[in-house]
Amino acid sequence: MANVGQFSDNLVRAIRAKQSVVCVGLDPRLDKIPESITNAARALFPSDNFAAAARAIYEYNIQIIDAVADLVPVVKPQIAFYEIYGAHGLQAFADTLKYAKSKGLLTIADAKRNDIGSTAEAYAQAFLGTTTVFGEQMRAFDADSITVTPYLGWDGIKPFLDVCMKEGKGMFVLVKTSNKSSGDFQDLAVGVGGDAVHPLYETVGHFTESWGADDLGEEGFSSVGAVVGATYPEQAKKLRALMPETIFLVPGFGAQGGTVADVLPCFLTGEKAGMGAIINSSRDVMFAYEKSDTLTADQFAEAARAKVIEMNEQLKVVFG
Amino acid sequence: MANVGQFSDNLVRAIRAKQSVVCVGLDPRLDKIPESITNAARALFPSDNFAAAARAIYEYNIQIIDAVADLVPVVKPQIAFYEIYGAHGLQAFADTLKYAKSKGLLTIADAKRNDIGSTAEAYAQAFLGTTTVFGEQMRAFDADSITVTPYLGWDGIKPFLDVCMKEGKGMFVLVKTSNKSSGDFQDLAVGVGGDAVHPLYETVGHFTESWGADDLGEEGFSSVGAVVGATYPEQAKKLRALMPETIFLVPGFGAQGGTVADVLPCFLTGEKAGMGAIINSSRDVMFAYEKSDTLTADQFAEAARAKVIEMNEQLKVVFG
Repeated sequence: MANVGQFSDNLVRAIRAKQSVVCVGLDPRLDKIPESITNAARALFPSDNFAAAARAIYEYNIQIIDAVADLVPVVKPQIAFYEIYGAHGLQAFADTLKYAKSKGLLTIADAKRNDIGSTAEAYAQAFLGTTTVFGEQMRAFDADSITVTPYLGWDGIKPFLDVCMKEGKGMFVLVKTSNKSSGDFQDLAVGVGGDAVHPLYETVGHFTESWGADDLGEEGFSSVGAVVGATYPEQAKKLRALMPETIFLVPGFGAQGGTVADVLPCFLTGEKAGMGAIINSSRDVMFAYEKSDTLTADQFAEAARAKVIEMNEQLKVVFG
Repeated sequence: MANVGQFSDNLVRAIRAKQSVVCVGLDPRLDKIPESITNAARALFPSDNFAAAARAIYEYNIQIIDAVADLVPVVKPQIAFYEIYGAHGLQAFADTLKYAKSKGLLTIADAKRNDIGSTAEAYAQAFLGTTTVFGEQMRAFDADSITVTPYLGWDGIKPFLDVCMKEGKGMFVLVKTSNKSSGDFQDLAVGVGGDAVHPLYETVGHFTESWGADDLGEEGFSSVGAVVGATYPEQAKKLRALMPETIFLVPGFGAQGGTVADVLPCFLTGEKAGMGAIINSSRDVMFAYEKSDTLTADQFAEAARAKVIEMNEQLKVVFG
């Protein structure tokens, strides 16, 4: 198919062009949005707080996007923070993806979806592909990629992969997550034929690498990526060795405790230095103004830009 | 807390009152909705196919709900089939939950959500709890329960459990799913301390049972349920023995191949005969008219009702 590997190629080329491995997480928090924005939104929708909230979120997001679009390759809205405002929130999610795209950014719908085959197909259509509605091909949430959970195995993955290969889109499979109790199941020793020698996350990583083998781009990476938390550098190191063609989406940097040293093992070295991972930061960028001595809430976009410049500077070491 | 165990009590009592263990899955398919409904919806929204599709789905759902409300305890809309129509689809999802509730039905939002703690908290708010929006307590998707994935471990579960206990809601954790490749990871032999003796799904089942221990209702069941596929009766039997206080949500009956004999191991016996599981059917009920010799597409509600009566009759054996 003509679009095989397109997402990974687009991502690698954007990383190279912008010399940035930063992904900005767009996880809005209504109570941190300045009144200049919320008051205007409430004036527009005086009798519908969900509509007003969604409007405020979107306005905040577009200013963040404008502030960082030239600095980073990709943004990642986390859908839970939109779902709390119901259908209006989901419209803000769709509009945010569209706006980011219009500014030349790649997008990751952080939705952690999955289900049995026929349902996974509907999710893939909703986030990456098209839905035929009364003969019209329509896009519900037009993201470039999506995060997915692995627990259902291959037939929950295949429908996403099919759409990825057809549409030039990508996906990131949860392999080793950044949270404290990620080891409850992910670290369990699993064995085939009675030999329990590998933690589950390595097996999931192995599957993820193999799922991506059919969707390799010209740059040598697959469009089936992996979520690998910055909070587990030892595990990341092992996974990096096991999964040479997989791009890691790395959450947990900054607010959750991950440092530059912690994320270094996620990257390739030598000729491919700087490649192989994107480092997400959500709160630290979105609400950078909270930690600023000089900038106010109304200067949140300026603060976000400064924070991204700082992150790019900290992380430029990965380019060797 | 006053509402501990309320969801499981409500479900058990509704099963007993209606003498039905059937859950009707509300997974709409636009191409199977009769033109009498789609034409009216398109006339209302001539220039917005997503809005028209969402309207048609909702109209179809309310007729299905009216047809089955006195026969079954619970319905389960699968959110992917709404997400493909974008924000309008999600509004139809919210409206469907609300309508089902108004007809005395319990609801399961089949969303298979989860994430790290702070994000899981947002999902729990969105589907089971409330969001504070400009000082107003609002509900985005007011379901009685939600399906969740286990891969992130305890700290992805706890925020849902907190809301369940506070609001009298419930959740169903994916333990052994009904799809063909569910064994890719779920059947892997896992061990603690080097002994690989149990398949992963048993470990997840064990955790699920323990997560529910704090949310037990008066009827002896926890509000933390488990998804256990009808297509794996041997595994269900083992899980039933391991998880005496857990209610199973059982997909895979009918269209996916599960039979009455296959789901029997999901139920308790003796004094608690008929308790411990609900059997989901989606396509077979929603589109029962397709298999009818006498009913047309316009009689889909009548066909759905007849199918549910047939299922209740087939499954009454579980009550002993």
